[in-house]
Amino acid sequence: GWIMACCGSCLCCQCCCCTEGETRTPEELTILGETREDEDEILPRKDYESLDYDRCINEPYVEVLEGLDKKVKYQIILLLLYVLFISTAIGVFVDFFVRLFTQLKFRLVGQSVEECSENGCLALSLVELLAFNMAFVFIASILVLIEPVAAGSGIPEIKSYLNGVKIPGIVRLRTFLCKAVGVLFAVAGGLFVGKEGPMIHSGAIVGAGLPQFQSITFKKIRFQFPYFRSDRDKRDFVSAGAAAGVAAAFGAPIGGTLFSLEEGSSFWNQALTWKVLFCSMSATFTLNFFRSGINYNKWGSFQLPGLLNFGEFKCPDGDKNCHLWTAVDLAFFVLMGVVGGLLGAMFNCINKRLAKYRMRNVHPKAKFIRVLESLLVCMVTSVVVFMASMTLGECRDLASPTANNTTAIVSANEDVNSSIRQFFCSNKTYNDMATLFFNPQEIAIHQLFHQDATFSPVTLSLFFVLYFLLSCWTYGVSVPSGLFVPSLLCGASLGRLVANVLKMNLGMHIYSGTFALIGAAAFLGGVVRMTISLTVILIESTNEITYGLPIMITLMVAKWTGDFFNKGIYDIHIHLRGVPLLEWETEVEMDKLTASDIMEPNLTYVYPHTRIQSLVSILRTTVYHAFPVVTENREYEKEFMKGNILVSNNIKFKVQTSTPDQQITFLHCQPLNRTQSFSSCCFWDRHVPYPNLYPDQSPSEEWSMEERFRPLTFHGLILRSQLVNLLIRGVCYAENQSSASQPRLSYAEMTEDYPRFPDIHDLDLALLNPRMIVDVTPYMNSSPYTVSPNTHVSQVFNLFRTMGLRHLPVVNAVGEIVGIITRHNLTHEFLMAKLRQHYITI
Amino acid sequence: GWIMACCGSCLCCQCCCCTEGETRTPEELTILGETREDEDEILPRKDYESLDYDRCINEPYVEVLEGLDKKVKYQIILLLLYVLFISTAIGVFVDFFVRLFTQLKFRLVGQSVEECSENGCLALSLVELLAFNMAFVFIASILVLIEPVAAGSGIPEIKSYLNGVKIPGIVRLRTFLCKAVGVLFAVAGGLFVGKEGPMIHSGAIVGAGLPQFQSITFKKIRFQFPYFRSDRDKRDFVSAGAAAGVAAAFGAPIGGTLFSLEEGSSFWNQALTWKVLFCSMSATFTLNFFRSGINYNKWGSFQLPGLLNFGEFKCPDGDKNCHLWTAVDLAFFVLMGVVGGLLGAMFNCINKRLAKYRMRNVHPKAKFIRVLESLLVCMVTSVVVFMASMTLGECRDLASPTANNTTAIVSANEDVNSSIRQFFCSNKTYNDMATLFFNPQEIAIHQLFHQDATFSPVTLSLFFVLYFLLSCWTYGVSVPSGLFVPSLLCGASLGRLVANVLKMNLGMHIYSGTFALIGAAAFLGGVVRMTISLTVILIESTNEITYGLPIMITLMVAKWTGDFFNKGIYDIHIHLRGVPLLEWETEVEMDKLTASDIMEPNLTYVYPHTRIQSLVSILRTTVYHAFPVVTENREYEKEFMKGNILVSNNIKFKVQTSTPDQQITFLHCQPLNRTQSFSSCCFWDRHVPYPNLYPDQSPSEEWSMEERFRPLTFHGLILRSQLVNLLIRGVCYAENQSSASQPRLSYAEMTEDYPRFPDIHDLDLALLNPRMIVDVTPYMNSSPYTVSPNTHVSQVFNLFRTMGLRHLPVVNAVGEIVGIITRHNLTHEFLMAKLRQHYITI
Repeated sequence: GWIMACCGSCLCCQCCCCTEGETRTPEELTILGETREDEDEILPRKDYESLDYDRCINEPYVEVLEGLDKKVKYQIILLLLYVLFISTAIGVFVDFFVRLFTQLKFRLVGQSVEECSENGCLALSLVELLAFNMAFVFIASILVLIEPVAAGSGIPEIKSYLNGVKIPGIVRLRTFLCKAVGVLFAVAGGLFVGKEGPMIHSGAIVGAGLPQFQSITFKKIRFQFPYFRSDRDKRDFVSAGAAAGVAAAFGAPIGGTLFSLEEGSSFWNQALTWKVLFCSMSATFTLNFFRSGINYNKWGSFQLPGLLNFGEFKCPDGDKNCHLWTAVDLAFFVLMGVVGGLLGAMFNCINKRLAKYRMRNVHPKAKFIRVLESLLVCMVTSVVVFMASMTLGECRDLASPTANNTTAIVSANEDVNSSIRQFFCSNKTYNDMATLFFNPQEIAIHQLFHQDATFSPVTLSLFFVLYFLLSCWTYGVSVPSGLFVPSLLCGASLGRLVANVLKMNLGMHIYSGTFALIGAAAFLGGVVRMTISLTVILIESTNEITYGLPIMITLMVAKWTGDFFNKGIYDIHIHLRGVPLLEWETEVEMDKLTASDIMEPNLTYVYPHTRIQSLVSILRTTVYHAFPVVTENREYEKEFMKGNILVSNNIKFKVQTSTPDQQITFLHCQPLNRTQSFSSCCFWDRHVPYPNLYPDQSPSEEWSMEERFRPLTFHGLILRSQLVNLLIRGVCYAENQSSASQPRLSYAEMTEDYPRFPDIHDLDLALLNPRMIVDVTPYMNSSPYTVSPNTHVSQVFNLFRTMGLRHLPVVNAVGEIVGIITRHNLTHEFLMAKLRQHYITI
Repeated sequence: GWIMACCGSCLCCQCCCCTEGETRTPEELTILGETREDEDEILPRKDYESLDYDRCINEPYVEVLEGLDKKVKYQIILLLLYVLFISTAIGVFVDFFVRLFTQLKFRLVGQSVEECSENGCLALSLVELLAFNMAFVFIASILVLIEPVAAGSGIPEIKSYLNGVKIPGIVRLRTFLCKAVGVLFAVAGGLFVGKEGPMIHSGAIVGAGLPQFQSITFKKIRFQFPYFRSDRDKRDFVSAGAAAGVAAAFGAPIGGTLFSLEEGSSFWNQALTWKVLFCSMSATFTLNFFRSGINYNKWGSFQLPGLLNFGEFKCPDGDKNCHLWTAVDLAFFVLMGVVGGLLGAMFNCINKRLAKYRMRNVHPKAKFIRVLESLLVCMVTSVVVFMASMTLGECRDLASPTANNTTAIVSANEDVNSSIRQFFCSNKTYNDMATLFFNPQEIAIHQLFHQDATFSPVTLSLFFVLYFLLSCWTYGVSVPSGLFVPSLLCGASLGRLVANVLKMNLGMHIYSGTFALIGAAAFLGGVVRMTISLTVILIESTNEITYGLPIMITLMVAKWTGDFFNKGIYDIHIHLRGVPLLEWETEVEMDKLTASDIMEPNLTYVYPHTRIQSLVSILRTTVYHAFPVVTENREYEKEFMKGNILVSNNIKFKVQTSTPDQQITFLHCQPLNRTQSFSSCCFWDRHVPYPNLYPDQSPSEEWSMEERFRPLTFHGLILRSQLVNLLIRGVCYAENQSSASQPRLSYAEMTEDYPRFPDIHDLDLALLNPRMIVDVTPYMNSSPYTVSPNTHVSQVFNLFRTMGLRHLPVVNAVGEIVGIITRHNLTHEFLMAKLRQHYITI
C-alpha cells in the first residue's frame, strides 16, 4: 500500500508541478477563463474588496473619543461573554444531536445486521443505512443550496477574512444557521467529514455578528453597539470567535488563540490576545461543563475537554520498560513526517483537480446537480462502509484483560472495548474493519490510538486507501465539511500500520498509540500545512506535553515535504477562489521593486470642496473605493495646512487659473460646471465611456498635457461609502454660503449603515441639487499612512499587512500623490509579473 | 497572619498611591534628582537610545540582496542550533552544580545537626551553614561587582531590550559569564532567589551574541555572519534565546514562545514565531535528555521536563470522588486571586521602597558596601533558616502508606518522602518547618504541592511571613536573583494554608495540591503581573490542561487586584531605572494630540552633498542620532526625485539663491564655506555655543527669519553612525569632480563595526580634507516611514511600536520636514505632559 501510495504521490505531484500541455478544447478554456493548467494560472480576482483594519480618524470620530474608553471596555466584556455562551451553545447543540442521530442509526442498523446475519437479509440493512444517510445528507445539501458559502470547512473563508479580504456572505446569520445545522446532518449522514472546521467558522460568525447584532435577513433583530461598527472591531471579535471555535472543537484554548494569531492578526496586540485567550479558555471549560453534565450526568466536574479528544496516552502501570517514546523513535517519526507530507501533497493535488473539475462542470449547471453529487458521494460512502465492514474484516482476539491489573486501565479500556463491533465474529474476537468503519469517527480514532488488541495490516491498509479516496472526494461537495477528523483517521491508520510492522516484524518495544498519533499528525500536517497552531492543538488534545517534540518535528518535516510539491489544502481552495491573500512576507528578491513600480497610477481625485454633480458623476462612473482629496495651488495648500476653514473653494480656484477670462462669469457661478467636473477627475482613463449625466459635462479634449498631469498635493483619503453617505444625508452647502453652514454628521450617523453602505445607484438624483457644494474635509481620513515612491516593496508590504490597510497612497517628496497601492498590487502574482517586467526593462 | 498581611498591604499601598509629602532634606532630593516621592516622579531618562528594528534599505543593502535569501536561511538554522545547544549547556551546567553544592551542603550540615542534637553543639552546625552560604554568596557578589548589569533577574533588561531600548552591557559576554556563574553561587548559597530569571537572561545573551560572535572583552574571538549585523536580526535571536531560556527553566516551550512575544515582539511574524517555537521546544527536550541521563542515568528517555517542574497532580487511583477541582472551588480560587494580588502589590511596594533606598544610600557609596549587604542578607537568611528549622517546627505524622496501594503513587510519594526532615522528631513523624526550610526550594515546592501528610497552620503562616520578608529584601541585592521560585514558594504555602483551613475546619472535599498551586499562581501573578505567558507556563509546568481555567482566572484576578495599587515588579524596576519603555497602546484620550503636538521641531539637517567640515561640525556639536537629508529648491528636488546623479551640489544652489552676486566666485568654489556650513544646520538653537572648529565658520546674525525657517524638502534619513563611518572610510569627492568618483562602500563595510560604531571624537581630523564633499544619498535611508503633522497619536504610536522604529520624521503636505518623533516623544510621561498642556491651551 505504501509504495503504491508513494509512487502515486510522486506521479501526481509531478503533473502538478510540471506544465504539461493537456488537450483541451477552446470552449473549456473559455469557461475556465484560463489558458494553461499549471499552478499559477488562476490570478487573484479583482472584485474582492479589502476590509479596512486601520482606524479612520476623522472629525466625527474625534468627537466621540470622550468617554469612549470606559464604555468600550464594559461592552467588550459583555460581548465576549455573549460570544462565549453562543459558541458553547452551538458546540453543545451540534454535539448532542450528532451523538443522538449517530447512536440511533448505528444501533438500528447494527441490530438489523446482527439479525440479518442469520436470516440473510443483509441487503435490507444496507437499504436502512442508505435511507438514513441519504436523508441526512439531503438535508445538509439543501441547506447549502440556500447559502452556498456554507459549503466546505470554512477555514479558508475565515483565513481570508482575517487576512483582510471581504468575501460576501461569510459572516452572515444565514450562513451560520445553514453551517451549524448542515454540518450536524452531514456528520450524522455518515459522510467522511469532520465537524471541527464548521465549528470554527460558526464561532467566527458569532463573533462577527454580535457587535452589530443585526441580521440582513431578519431586519427587525437589531442590537445597538455603535462603537463597534468598523471592520477593525469586527476583526477582533471574529478572532475571538474563531479561537473559541477551535478551543471548543479540540479542547485546545492555547491552540485556538494561536490559530487566530497565525491565520489572522499580523499585529500582536497583547490586550486582544489576552481577551482571545480568555474567551477560548472559557469556551473550552463551559463546553466541558455542559457536556460532562449532559453526557455523564456529572455536573460540576470537567471530564470531556473538547468535542474531539484523543484520550489519555499512558503506559500500563508497573511496566517500567514502557516509554511513550524514546530518542530512537524520533528517526521513525521523521520518516513518517516525510511519508505524511507526500501523501498530504497527493491528497491536495487530487482534491485540487476535483475542485477544478467541479468549477468547470458542476457549478455552472443547475443547482440540484450539486445535491445529486452529494447524494452520490453519500451513497458510495455508505455502500463502501457497509460492504467493507461485512466482507473485508478479520476477526482478531481481544486484548487479554490479565495484563491490565489496575483499575484505571480497565476503565479506560472499557470505553474503548465497548465500541468494538463483533459482526460475524465469535466471542472474545471482533471484526476489526467493522470496528473502524461502523462507528463514529471519534471512536474510530480512539480505537486506533488506544486499542491494545491488534488490527490486521491488510485491514489498516484497506481502511487507509478507502478513507483517503472517499474523504478526498467528499471535501468540496456542497455540504459543510471539515477536514481534520478524516485526515486524523487516515493518518492514524497509517501510523498504526507502521507500529504493527515495527512491533510484529521487527520486534521493537514501542507504544502503538504514539505511532498512531504521530501518523495522524504527519498526514494532517501534510494536508493542511499549519505549523504553530496545529502543534499546540495536537499537544493540548493529547494533554501530554512530552509529545511536544515528536509532534513538532513530524509536522515540520511533513510541511517541508509537502511544500516541495504544492500548497496546503486551505491555501489551494483560497487560490482557486481567486482570493487576493497576502502572505506573511514578500521574498527578499521583491526588494528590487519600489512602490512606484507597483502602484496604480491612474486615480480619480476629489477636491476638499466639490460640487454634488461632480461627486455623483465620479461615483457613478468609477469603481474605486477611495478617492484622494487633493489641491493644486501652493497658496491654497498653505491655507489648508494651517487648518483654516477655506473661504474659497477649489472650484473657484480652478477657473481662476485655467480660464482667467471667465472670472466674472465664475463669480455668478453659472457656467462653471463643465470645467469643474473634469478637474475633479482629471486622470480619467477608464474604459467606461464617460456618461452624460448632466448635459453640460461632455468630455473635453481641450486639456493640455500639463493640465492632465499637474501636481496634486495630497491631503487625505475619502471612501466611496463616506461620500455616498454624505450625499444621502444632504451634507452640503450653497455656493453663496460658507462651508461652516454645512450640516454635521455624528459618528453614529456615519457608521449607521455598516457593513452594507448604500450604493450610489440607489440614490435618487432628483432630491439633490447638483449645484450645491460638499466639504469633505471633516469626514476624510486626513492622515492615512503614506509611502514615498522609492520605498522598497518589503517595507510597503510590511506596512500594508501589519496595519491592515485598504488603500496606501504613494506620495512623492513634494507632497504630490502619484499613485495608490491596494491589496491587488501586493499579491504574489502581481509582484511576480512586475518583477519579470523589471528584469526585461533593465 | 492573613488579616495582618491584608491590612499591611492596604496601608502600604495607600502610601504608595497617595502623594503624601515626606520630610526630606534638599541634599537627598538632589541626589535622587527628584522632588516628590510619588509614583510619577521618575521620568524616563533621555540618555537611553533606541534600537533600530526597521531595516535601513540603502544602496549597499540592495546590492547584497542577490543570494541573500538562501544564505540567510541556512545560517539561521545553524545559529538556532548554536543557541539551542549553548542554552542547554548552561542549563545543564547550572543545574548540575547547584544540585551538587546544595546536596553537599545539606548533607554535611544535616549530619552535623543530627549528631549535635545529641551533643548540644548546634552552634557549630550553624557556623558550618553560615560558612558555606557566605562563601558562595561572596563569590556571587564579587561576580556582580565585575559586571553590575548581572545583578537581579534580568527579565526587566530583556523586556527593555525587546521593547527597543538599548541598555549598555546587557547582552555582553561578560554579563553572561557573571550571570550564569553568579546565579549558581547565589542559589547554592541559600539565598531566597530563583535561577529562572537569570537563565532567561543568559539564553537571551547567547541569542544576541552568536550572530556576530565577537566579544568586547576578548577581541580575538570573532565569527563572521555579516548579514546579521543589525538590531533587527539581533532582536530575532534574542527572542529565540529568551524563549529557549524560559523553555529550559520551566519545561514550557509554548510558554517560552509566548513569553518572547508578550514581552517583546510587537509584530507577529509567523516565520520568526515558528523558529522561536522550534528553538524553545528543542531546548526543552535537549535539556530533558541530558538531565535524565545525568541525574537518573537513563539516557534516551525524557523524564525531567524543566529545571523547575511541579510534579504530577493526580487523584489517587480508585478514589472516584476525588476531583482535582470542581466548579465550586472556582469561587475560592477567585478569592485567592484577590489575596494574591493584594500581597503581590504589598511585595512590590516594599521592594520599590527598598530599591529607592538602595539607589539613594547604597549605590552612591563604595562598591564593597554592596558586597557587605549581600553578605548581611545571606547571614540573616541562614540564621533564620537554621533557627526556624530547629525551634519552630512541629512534628507531624507521615501519611499512612495504606492509602496508597498502587505502585505509581508509591513511587511518586517515595520521591516526596525521601526529602522530609526529621530533626528532633521521632520515627514516622517529621519536622514540618525543617522540611520546608532545610531543603532546596524546588523540593519545598514539591512538598507543598504533593505531600499527603499535613503541615501545621502555624508553620505555614510563619514560613510565609519569613519567606515573604526575606525574599523581598533579597530581590535587589547585588547578586543574580530570580523571583519566580521564591514567589511560588510563598504563594504555595499560602494556598496550602487555605487548603488546610477548608479541609480541616470546614471539612470540604478538596485536593490540597490544587490549592497550593493556585496559591502559588495567585501570589506570583500578583508580583509579576504577566498574563498570557505566565498562564501558559504554569499550565505546561503542571502538564495538566485541566488546570487551564483555574490558573487563568486566578492570574487575571490577581493582576486586576494588583494593578489597582501599583505595577508589576519588573515594570517597577524598569521605571526606577528610567527606561523609556513603550506600552502596548496609548490611551484613547491621547488621540486628542497629533504628531505636531509631540514631535521635536528643532532639527539639524544635512544636504545630499555636504562638505566634510560641515559634517564634522554637525556631528561634533549635536547629540542627535539621525539627520534628515533635505533640499531647498523645487527645481533641484525635481532632479533629485528623478533619481539623476546630481551634477551640481546643494552648496552651489544655496549660493545661487542667497547671494546671486557671488555666482562667479561660487564656480571657483572658494569663499563659500561660511554660508554653506550654516545652511546645513539652519535650525540651530541648541544651548551649546557654536564651536569654531574652522575659522571661517563663525555664526552669522545676518540671516533673515525666512532663511531660518525656509521650506526643507525631506528626502531621507542618515544615521550618525553612518556619517561617521563615511568620514572614517574617506567616502568623499573633490569639488571639481563628479559625485560618481566617490568611493563606494559595501554592505559588509557599512556594518563591520556593529554594534559599537566609532565616535566622531575618535576621528583624526588631520586626515580629513575639510573641503571635500560627501554624497550621502547612496547610504541614507531614502524611504523611511513618515507621518503627516495631523496624524493622531494612536496612529503614530502604532506605527512606531509595531515597526520598531527609532526615528519617525514628520513631513507636511508639501513634503517639508517639520519634526522628528523618537521614543522619548511617545513615553507615557511625555504624552501626559503634552496632554495637560493641550488642555491648558484650549
